[in-house]
Amino acid sequence: MGRSLKTTALSALGRRLKPPPISWLMEQVLARPHLVSLAAGFTDDATLPVAETRRLLTRLLARRATGEPALQYGSTPGLPALRRLTASRLYEQDAATAPGQLPEQVYHPDAIVITHGSQQLLYLLCEVLCDPGDVVLVEDPTYFVFLGILSCRGVETRGIPLTSEGPDPDRLEAVLEQLRREHRLHRVKMLYLVSYHQNPTGTTTSFACKTAILDLLRHYERRAGHPIYLLEDAAYRELRFAGPDTASALATPTGPERVLYAGTYSKPFATGVRVGFGVLPEPVRSAVLCLKGNHDFGTSNLGQHLLLAALESGEYDQHVIQLRRRYATKASWMTAALRRHFPPEAHWTDPRGGMYVWVRLPRRVRTGPRSALFQRALAADVLYVPGRFCYALDPTRRTPDHEMRLSFGHASEQAIRTGVARLGRVLAALYG
Amino acid sequence: MGRSLKTTALSALGRRLKPPPISWLMEQVLARPHLVSLAAGFTDDATLPVAETRRLLTRLLARRATGEPALQYGSTPGLPALRRLTASRLYEQDAATAPGQLPEQVYHPDAIVITHGSQQLLYLLCEVLCDPGDVVLVEDPTYFVFLGILSCRGVETRGIPLTSEGPDPDRLEAVLEQLRREHRLHRVKMLYLVSYHQNPTGTTTSFACKTAILDLLRHYERRAGHPIYLLEDAAYRELRFAGPDTASALATPTGPERVLYAGTYSKPFATGVRVGFGVLPEPVRSAVLCLKGNHDFGTSNLGQHLLLAALESGEYDQHVIQLRRRYATKASWMTAALRRHFPPEAHWTDPRGGMYVWVRLPRRVRTGPRSALFQRALAADVLYVPGRFCYALDPTRRTPDHEMRLSFGHASEQAIRTGVARLGRVLAALYG
Repeated sequence: MGRSLKTTALSALGRRLKPPPISWLMEQVLARPHLVSLAAGFTDDATLPVAETRRLLTRLLARRATGEPALQYGSTPGLPALRRLTASRLYEQDAATAPGQLPEQVYHPDAIVITHGSQQLLYLLCEVLCDPGDVVLVEDPTYFVFLGILSCRGVETRGIPLTSEGPDPDRLEAVLEQLRREHRLHRVKMLYLVSYHQNPTGTTTSFACKTAILDLLRHYERRAGHPIYLLEDAAYRELRFAGPDTASALATPTGPERVLYAGTYSKPFATGVRVGFGVLPEPVRSAVLCLKGNHDFGTSNLGQHLLLAALESGEYDQHVIQLRRRYATKASWMTAALRRHFPPEAHWTDPRGGMYVWVRLPRRVRTGPRSALFQRALAADVLYVPGRFCYALDPTRRTPDHEMRLSFGHASEQAIRTGVARLGRVLAALYG
Repeated sequence: MGRSLKTTALSALGRRLKPPPISWLMEQVLARPHLVSLAAGFTDDATLPVAETRRLLTRLLARRATGEPALQYGSTPGLPALRRLTASRLYEQDAATAPGQLPEQVYHPDAIVITHGSQQLLYLLCEVLCDPGDVVLVEDPTYFVFLGILSCRGVETRGIPLTSEGPDPDRLEAVLEQLRREHRLHRVKMLYLVSYHQNPTGTTTSFACKTAILDLLRHYERRAGHPIYLLEDAAYRELRFAGPDTASALATPTGPERVLYAGTYSKPFATGVRVGFGVLPEPVRSAVLCLKGNHDFGTSNLGQHLLLAALESGEYDQHVIQLRRRYATKASWMTAALRRHFPPEAHWTDPRGGMYVWVRLPRRVRTGPRSALFQRALAADVLYVPGRFCYALDPTRRTPDHEMRLSFGHASEQAIRTGVARLGRVLAALYG
């Protein structure tokens, strides 16, 4: 007889996996059919481009000459025409806003990889860059699914507090100095930045701040002994409805060598069609391509052909204009309801894009899943994302627990007004 | 001044990645516009369901009630109706062929996960089960992209020779005994089996052989100290055009606990729509779901809704009948050409499904990428997959180098005849 049989053969990664906080929230939604959810990151149903997609696909599939390529396997990097168009659109976006000369070579189809949503690219990048025990710097707070990737891969995190311009360069320098003192700079692989209308806070990082961050990372590279990348997640760039656009970090002098740019066509067009893209320098691009070959040997071709047709026909741009208008209206419904129902101690910044309002309450008001506020809100049939879910596990500070992420993306006008009013009543009852 | 800057910050996995052999083959195709490729794993263009897909999508997108859900995010496990249908179809397939009573609980929607093609599932399973240094048993030869997954993850392989019934249980036992003597049984996590019309050899594993394999794995589990899974890759199950179907390993007594079943709708319907599925026992299913949440939080919904509509309407089944007929014809073109042009020393088994003919030549005839045969074939504008690409790196045997994989999936009738004739002429010139 050998040893007794363990119940699992899972790998170290498999044993580190745990259900993401969002699945716990989803269970609450399913358990309460009348719940108003201001938690979901889903997009607006009413603006989903049903007729546009029908028109585009009907045309694409009307002839075998265009239909067959859309239903056949493609290549691992993605559809060449879609990569060309992506490169030129990005060049135009950055050229319109960058203060200096653009490094043209980076806006090249060969630098582009098409992925199953930008989420897949985030995962691939963590895989090719990070070993367990490595360190990734993140905004404090940041996008919680990215934290899930890092945690299952055994990667450690340090949070960089945000100003209204993006991650505070002074705080970044202090964190890097601290890591230097701990002799851990050689484990630092990248800084993850959600640079436009950030999930969860709505912050857009200024071009000056991106430049300052890259300069700092470059400075500490010497002591790290290897490149430290800036992973710029531009998922919400197209969802801007107020204020000017900002050039991406690709447009900085260091951009072509150190910026990993992640973009997406899913959120601005249709989230049921998962087509994202990356702009990547070598050797990261080659590594990502080899790995994507192992993951799925290329993104679903039908989705790529649909997006290409949407971009070429102008349907995509028309749709984005409509979507921005819609989100601007929904944001104003939410902030109006907040002004009406929330106490004067609550603070938020009116969003200029994206799908979220980040509400800061006084520190004594706990918002976590076990707090009186969260539980009473649930009893009153309204759900929000507790702010603490968006904070990295960072041993150097206590996790803030007095904030909430409210989403106006999926909720209807009625749901937004009712949900915020209910939350206001719970706040008044508890702290009024 | 710190240390000198290394050129890369890649992870251990990133450094292990190398371009798959197939990308080298693809380069040959691109470099020679008149090349006849019998190497590609692409499916048949002429049978791609362009009109069917147009009809299905036009209907799906005709109303907002059905169009919106197809264009919105879905859930991580996948569309419930598609999982229900997948479970019941699989039950019917196995019920029609299994010798005994089926373990009904395993054919349940809750056991099913929808993925971006079955390839994604293979990757996820390796991630949640295997650490670097672990051992996975594979057929000798096997599907080379799976070998790419294992190699980038630092997983070791041992090959199990094939009989006409599947992997030889006696040889499997010998390998397991050898691993026991090396005190490495605790590193063995699974056996990977392409059970229907295997890529590359066309072998279908009999139900008796599956049962014998599972019994052996179960026996050695005691000494391994953990479950050893059978990963059954059924990618070519639907592409059977001769002979009876065989029940899956799920239908064995051990199936519900130890079989990881990977299926796909892509190859039988449209490879440009990547929808695969898994049937997984706990704790593997939960781990795969958490990890898929980090990879992409769910498979593209449009593809899932399309496949659901194709299955529900009967279009899928109609298409599969047509596809089987087409591949039967193409296989017969290829074997007829082989009989006519290849020397009598060449051996192959007439395929009963799938897309490949595996040709065994005398051992003195080298087929590798640097061999005279391969180079002369390339000069004569015909490409095949060298057999050695399909063999795992296994230190216990020399890699066979006298076989070739010929695909009749994508090539036209003309290309099949011309390609095989050219190969025959090169063989005659070199060895005639």
